Amino acid sequence: MFFGGVGEIGKNLTALEFGNDIIIIDCGASFPTTDMPGVDLVIPDVSYLIANKDKVRGIVLTHGHEDHIGGLPFVLKEIPAPIYGTRITLALIETRLKEHDITGIKMVSVENGDVISLGCFGIEFVNVSHSVAGSCALCISTPVGYIFHSGDFKIDYTPVAGNMTDLRRIAKIGDRGVLLLMCESTNIERPGQSMSERKVGESFKNIFAANPERRIVIATFASNIHRLQQILDIAQKFNRKVAFCGRSMLSVVQATKAIGELRFDDSQVVDIDRINNIPDKNLVIITTGSQGEPMSALTRMASDEMKIRLGYNDTVVISSMPIPGNERMIFNVINNLYRHGCKVIYESLADVHVSGHAYQEEIKLLHSLIKPKFFVPVHGERRHQCKHVELAESMGMGIQNILIPDIGSTILLSKKKMAFSDSVPSGSMLVDGLGVGDVGCSILRDRKHMAEEGLAIVLITLDRHSGLVSEVDITSRGFVYGEEGDSLTEEAKTVVCQVSESFDLKEAGDFTDYKNQIRKSLRNFFIKKIRRNPMVIPIVIEV
Amino acid sequence: MFFGGVGEIGKNLTALEFGNDIIIIDCGASFPTTDMPGVDLVIPDVSYLIANKDKVRGIVLTHGHEDHIGGLPFVLKEIPAPIYGTRITLALIETRLKEHDITGIKMVSVENGDVISLGCFGIEFVNVSHSVAGSCALCISTPVGYIFHSGDFKIDYTPVAGNMTDLRRIAKIGDRGVLLLMCESTNIERPGQSMSERKVGESFKNIFAANPERRIVIATFASNIHRLQQILDIAQKFNRKVAFCGRSMLSVVQATKAIGELRFDDSQVVDIDRINNIPDKNLVIITTGSQGEPMSALTRMASDEMKIRLGYNDTVVISSMPIPGNERMIFNVINNLYRHGCKVIYESLADVHVSGHAYQEEIKLLHSLIKPKFFVPVHGERRHQCKHVELAESMGMGIQNILIPDIGSTILLSKKKMAFSDSVPSGSMLVDGLGVGDVGCSILRDRKHMAEEGLAIVLITLDRHSGLVSEVDITSRGFVYGEEGDSLTEEAKTVVCQVSESFDLKEAGDFTDYKNQIRKSLRNFFIKKIRRNPMVIPIVIEV
Repeated sequence: MFFGGVGEIGKNLTALEFGNDIIIIDCGASFPTTDMPGVDLVIPDVSYLIANKDKVRGIVLTHGHEDHIGGLPFVLKEIPAPIYGTRITLALIETRLKEHDITGIKMVSVENGDVISLGCFGIEFVNVSHSVAGSCALCISTPVGYIFHSGDFKIDYTPVAGNMTDLRRIAKIGDRGVLLLMCESTNIERPGQSMSERKVGESFKNIFAANPERRIVIATFASNIHRLQQILDIAQKFNRKVAFCGRSMLSVVQATKAIGELRFDDSQVVDIDRINNIPDKNLVIITTGSQGEPMSALTRMASDEMKIRLGYNDTVVISSMPIPGNERMIFNVINNLYRHGCKVIYESLADVHVSGHAYQEEIKLLHSLIKPKFFVPVHGERRHQCKHVELAESMGMGIQNILIPDIGSTILLSKKKMAFSDSVPSGSMLVDGLGVGDVGCSILRDRKHMAEEGLAIVLITLDRHSGLVSEVDITSRGFVYGEEGDSLTEEAKTVVCQVSESFDLKEAGDFTDYKNQIRKSLRNFFIKKIRRNPMVIPIVIEV
Repeated sequence: MFFGGVGEIGKNLTALEFGNDIIIIDCGASFPTTDMPGVDLVIPDVSYLIANKDKVRGIVLTHGHEDHIGGLPFVLKEIPAPIYGTRITLALIETRLKEHDITGIKMVSVENGDVISLGCFGIEFVNVSHSVAGSCALCISTPVGYIFHSGDFKIDYTPVAGNMTDLRRIAKIGDRGVLLLMCESTNIERPGQSMSERKVGESFKNIFAANPERRIVIATFASNIHRLQQILDIAQKFNRKVAFCGRSMLSVVQATKAIGELRFDDSQVVDIDRINNIPDKNLVIITTGSQGEPMSALTRMASDEMKIRLGYNDTVVISSMPIPGNERMIFNVINNLYRHGCKVIYESLADVHVSGHAYQEEIKLLHSLIKPKFFVPVHGERRHQCKHVELAESMGMGIQNILIPDIGSTILLSKKKMAFSDSVPSGSMLVDGLGVGDVGCSILRDRKHMAEEGLAIVLITLDRHSGLVSEVDITSRGFVYGEEGDSLTEEAKTVVCQVSESFDLKEAGDFTDYKNQIRKSLRNFFIKKIRRNPMVIPIVIEV
């Protein structure tokens, strides 16, 4: 009796439905892949939920990462349901909603151990460790039994702040009996146990100690508040002021300081525009851009697009690991930093980052405490989900009690049975500029075609009875230029003339067939001549 | 006295010049990055060499990988110099030249220990282990001293076939005194020693033993002949026939079997189109596509675009590691394979691949044997070159004796001094369809603009004296469609009318200023209305 929009990294969204009640768990967004040029953000297709929005009792959030909350500003416009999350999660959301001018949403703050009722569902929030503070797993009571949703989690026995993953509570929940476990799969390929966040602090201390005279620049995710806190604390010990850099960094710091989650004295922080008077040895810059994102502060510093110049006296620490697909971007930034003479420290060379996701042994611990009847691997690509199934089987779970959902899958769950049901409209909505969902497949296809092959606009002025009345004009873009292009254009014009002469223009109606013929002939011509296939747009003017 | 076109992965090319003599070392090509839509291949800019082609005495090749020979078909058209390489290298080149209809090039086969004379240069070929058979380092005598060029190498004490890296010869060369060492830097970030290729064979044996009833599909680089040989040998032991799949796989197998480098009985091989009658347990398919390349056999199998269907009884082994930037592509292929029900074994999970490039301890061994006066790190990104400098310094080399070249750098070398000189025209030539070099920056910029923002063609018919004579027509692509688009188009037409009314068309000359004004006004309009900035192409027809 539940519907899942899961099965890939980014844009996590799961919904549970029973009778007249629906609850939504997380509402993420992902960044566009290279086959979506010009797209700003990708959010889940929620048309099923919009069609049933009267049933939606609330949106429950496990934590404040982009891939779990980034879709909210767009979904809330259609489904203005109340949202439930920890103080930090809500603080991270609030800045986002403000940017989108969204007001009037009921926001309810919860803590570890709180239980809320939404229709027939009861949701208990269970503290877990993760790379953003205030992360939770969820234990959801439903009319058919308990569902445990891990959220994104790891087990950190020595957390920097906050409580650790509440293993005793999870054990009790397991004792009571869990019908279905949904568990994240991100790091299922990594054997053993993830390192504690505290380890990063130790590495930072060593880096500060080894670079007493140099300026230190650290790039990390803004939302990793515990890491920011560690850097602030170490900076203070080493008598360095801290400058925050990057839009999202500034807004997260402001929001989490306001609620007391990030703690520092105002005198320790200096505005990034006022660092010129501070000696290198007394400064740390904490910046966004740890994934090499094109518009981020670090990328722009590395390519000299910002006021801050990096150089021979800078030690730059990239405190993150590339998300698959971002490798090329981040390595380009690193290469640029080296060209500027910086010393660069990054993950493949030092312990300056730990993952926020559970490794194999931690995942096994969760399975062994919960001992569910049914299991659904979530959060991760298909390869991760499949490996997670193998892990569950190795712990004695029967394959008949496991399902791997895809985006848009729905699963019917009863006390005795779990099975796929009809799938619902699903996939991705693309956000481009102010438009949501209006960039569809055909637009992306056109964009891709123009990008890869270029464009030829063919302007034809004709009289239905006497044929072409002036010379054909061809305008090209992204294609061929120069002298070679001139002679090519002349030949292409001849092709258009030939088509026009052989075509019965009198009977040509709205010229659809004529235009298609021009397209086809020019396509053949270009492929033969230069092995390229530009998009051909014929424009016919009848005089 | 030498010029280097080095400094990034892909398209390796270095040239040495003294007096009237130039020799070229390697001539590679690289695949386009995502900011080069529609480009097929990237080759080095060799305009300096073309301008001096009378001096070019020969092209010396270290080995037959794409990034060392892929530029040959294009460069040989301009500079038809003789080429020198081992039998296997030449065999790999020959198939390539045939595809490009290039004939009449003098090709000279060399062996380990051979010394050839090209003008004032003497080149000794020194056997090294690498992931393609027939790889060499070069020891080049010049009028100012010896230059040692490592090529791509590793040290494999238990090679599958062929001789190992000729350490005793390298030691002697070092004894004689080397002026300059150019050494590859690809794996400089990896501590320790790379594993032997033999290790992959052991993993394959385990996989064959563990999957007795299943069909086995192995994706690997076609050029890794030793790996192909290992698979053939193991397949025979396990009573499996082998089918080769993918265009480059077939051509490499044919070429290397013809010269006796790949050894198998014809009866062991079956045509890929005739595998239907062979039971899964008696078949291995060896395929291209280990990098998830879009047009490769494995990618097309995984997305059901080929006759071969993969499914529940297939074990697919990806015997390679993603080249940085290819991660997303290869993971997409792996996810698709899992969706088909295949078992997938890849590098992060098992030892099914070893690198062909030296790790830190191997690189140190080469430095310690050669003990050069000057050092130039080559083959690798800037970050690798910088780390390589640190390694050389840690072994006692003075920083004043090291230079990091960039693409287009030239270095003046004498017995006593090494320094940068004026750089020469450099960068990349882009190959797109049949055109080489005609896709330049402005074209790529246009393509990118159209891809990210779409296109609006504005057709304006006007009379210089009376203004617009018919309705403005706007055609859009990759932009907005549907009802919202219609009203947007209407408003945009109004903008064009307003510009036209306020413009003095009588004095508008060739309408350049008028068109610019239309572009500007529409740009502002679109950004304000929908936060997009499509390419605007105004076409003015004067009647």
